[in-house]
Amino acid sequence: MVRSLVRRLLGRSQNNGTAAPALELPPEDSRARARAMVMGLQDEICAGLESLDGEGTFVEESWERPEGGGGRSRVMREGLVFEQGGVNFSEVQGQELPPSILKQRPEAKGHPWFATGTSMVLHPHNPYIPTVHLNYRYFEAGPVWWFGGGADLTPYYPFLEDARHFHRTHQAACDSVHPDLHKVFKPWCDEYFFLKHRGETRGVGGIFYDYQDSSGVLYKGQDPSGPAAGVSAQLGARPLGWEQLFALGQANGRAFLPSYAPIVEKRHPMAYGDRERQFQLYRRGRYVEFNLVWDRGTIFGLQTNGRTESILMSLPPLVRWEYGYKAEAGSREALLTELFTKPQDWLGDASLEDRCRPHGAIN
Amino acid sequence: MVRSLVRRLLGRSQNNGTAAPALELPPEDSRARARAMVMGLQDEICAGLESLDGEGTFVEESWERPEGGGGRSRVMREGLVFEQGGVNFSEVQGQELPPSILKQRPEAKGHPWFATGTSMVLHPHNPYIPTVHLNYRYFEAGPVWWFGGGADLTPYYPFLEDARHFHRTHQAACDSVHPDLHKVFKPWCDEYFFLKHRGETRGVGGIFYDYQDSSGVLYKGQDPSGPAAGVSAQLGARPLGWEQLFALGQANGRAFLPSYAPIVEKRHPMAYGDRERQFQLYRRGRYVEFNLVWDRGTIFGLQTNGRTESILMSLPPLVRWEYGYKAEAGSREALLTELFTKPQDWLGDASLEDRCRPHGAIN
Repeated sequence: MVRSLVRRLLGRSQNNGTAAPALELPPEDSRARARAMVMGLQDEICAGLESLDGEGTFVEESWERPEGGGGRSRVMREGLVFEQGGVNFSEVQGQELPPSILKQRPEAKGHPWFATGTSMVLHPHNPYIPTVHLNYRYFEAGPVWWFGGGADLTPYYPFLEDARHFHRTHQAACDSVHPDLHKVFKPWCDEYFFLKHRGETRGVGGIFYDYQDSSGVLYKGQDPSGPAAGVSAQLGARPLGWEQLFALGQANGRAFLPSYAPIVEKRHPMAYGDRERQFQLYRRGRYVEFNLVWDRGTIFGLQTNGRTESILMSLPPLVRWEYGYKAEAGSREALLTELFTKPQDWLGDASLEDRCRPHGAIN
Repeated sequence: MVRSLVRRLLGRSQNNGTAAPALELPPEDSRARARAMVMGLQDEICAGLESLDGEGTFVEESWERPEGGGGRSRVMREGLVFEQGGVNFSEVQGQELPPSILKQRPEAKGHPWFATGTSMVLHPHNPYIPTVHLNYRYFEAGPVWWFGGGADLTPYYPFLEDARHFHRTHQAACDSVHPDLHKVFKPWCDEYFFLKHRGETRGVGGIFYDYQDSSGVLYKGQDPSGPAAGVSAQLGARPLGWEQLFALGQANGRAFLPSYAPIVEKRHPMAYGDRERQFQLYRRGRYVEFNLVWDRGTIFGLQTNGRTESILMSLPPLVRWEYGYKAEAGSREALLTELFTKPQDWLGDASLEDRCRPHGAIN
């Protein structure tokens, strides 16, 4: 179990015991700056979401971690748009990493460690508005440090233009730091948010990255033979400094509201009925399955005495399971399942329009 | 990951590489008899549940496993008593166990393996009727074989007499084979059905056992320092033969209907309101959390290409999560959480009555 937890925390590529080249040292105020950045994202995003909802407000709960650090969890319930939304901030620290992790990263020995991040999941009422998740984080232990994060969109009903807008916005944010990043972070997202037992992605994806440090190796995920690893290997190293990777988190975090708010504004006025609500509740079951069975962060948190209520804030307020359910052939529900839960080249593949047009699922 | 999966399958105690004493050989028709036994349990239990429900019937779906074997899944939906109930039977087989498992049980090398079992989860409408689960199974690979199984009760509202009746009935079934078995299988159940991230048992427990072969070591679970291991060590080995362990599965399986039907008959007529329904939906979330985060069988099945719909038949039809929910102090909901999700000596501890009496939670 420890071995698999370590792999969950460190990623496969750092698990092979080969010596890594020395990293650029982080700036002296790295922790304070990373903390302020993700905390600022939480503030900006909460303010933006309250304004978008128009009625709901976030209720904040601050908490302390007995071993060091703490956080502030913010929840909106029964807003006009959002049935439930949670935006967390946390910073945790300790005197020394556990031996099992130090074995993988011996450079961290003797150094206190620090981790900070913000994460968010929104569950809207209206089934035409997608659920969305983001998480941006920073880890440091002496000379060892990395940035990670991402955002992914989970629609219940198919609208090609929503998927494209979300991807376009995040691609622009990644490109603002380096034009090659999105080429790896997009397929890495499809790979990470994958329900193997269903053969489905969690939705239309977005971006995902982790363990980004000045070594410049872009892909550090679990599947050495997947598309993300392939693109990353072709591109080779893209060494970015601490400042650039900090700017990447900032840019992506700030891209969230522009990537999502226009979708909400477009879909919120659309009327829906019981059929759409029931399908939304059913598909929310997949969200639960992913988070509890496959999400490394969730499982690691629950198994290592994390703050349960904050971790499980991502779960939907109401969920339905139905044995053997299959969407009616040719329905929008079938299109969602067949097209929008499989990896797609949303921005480059024009044939997606032909698949979506008969269902009015483009705009 | 493989290492933790192997441990999930084999249990800790068989993972230490020491040579085990030779087991009694199973009878020649062991597989056919084990298969007929668990299949018979599925039939008897389904017939009993249909009669208990009075309206709902089971719909059967048969399936085949491409690698060998198959099963029949039976689901009742929207019965009078049961909102959803699933009773599975399966038998799976293969030519040889994977190398990672053979390393732990080298005696099985060169032998085909076989596993059969029945499992059941019932989700009643009425929040005063508990959810219940059972599973009885048999595994064989040449000279290696074992029986496993158990049943546990998950009430939403506290009734001491229901917990006692369920335990009393299963204790009698265990005692019919050997009077020491229940002393270990009861605390093993509390240990297995435990949500570490909530500090709660899944309910009032029942019995749980696994890897039972003629070696006679009763406890073969994950926690060498827990109460079940302690009692087992004190008792020492209780060598039972194949026939006795077969009889144990049979007796426990047949104890299920008498352990549960009287509870249904007593609680079904009780009127309930929205408060009780909402609490039931909320507590069902714990059932999902246990099954997807902690249940070895579920996780192993999902990660190794099991039949997803049959595995997830255990999930409730409708579930609610609520951030930061706390039951009102002094309420029945608080009593459920404080007393009925902690291990108790249901049959021996008379002080439980004092805790339950003020809430009318005895009978």
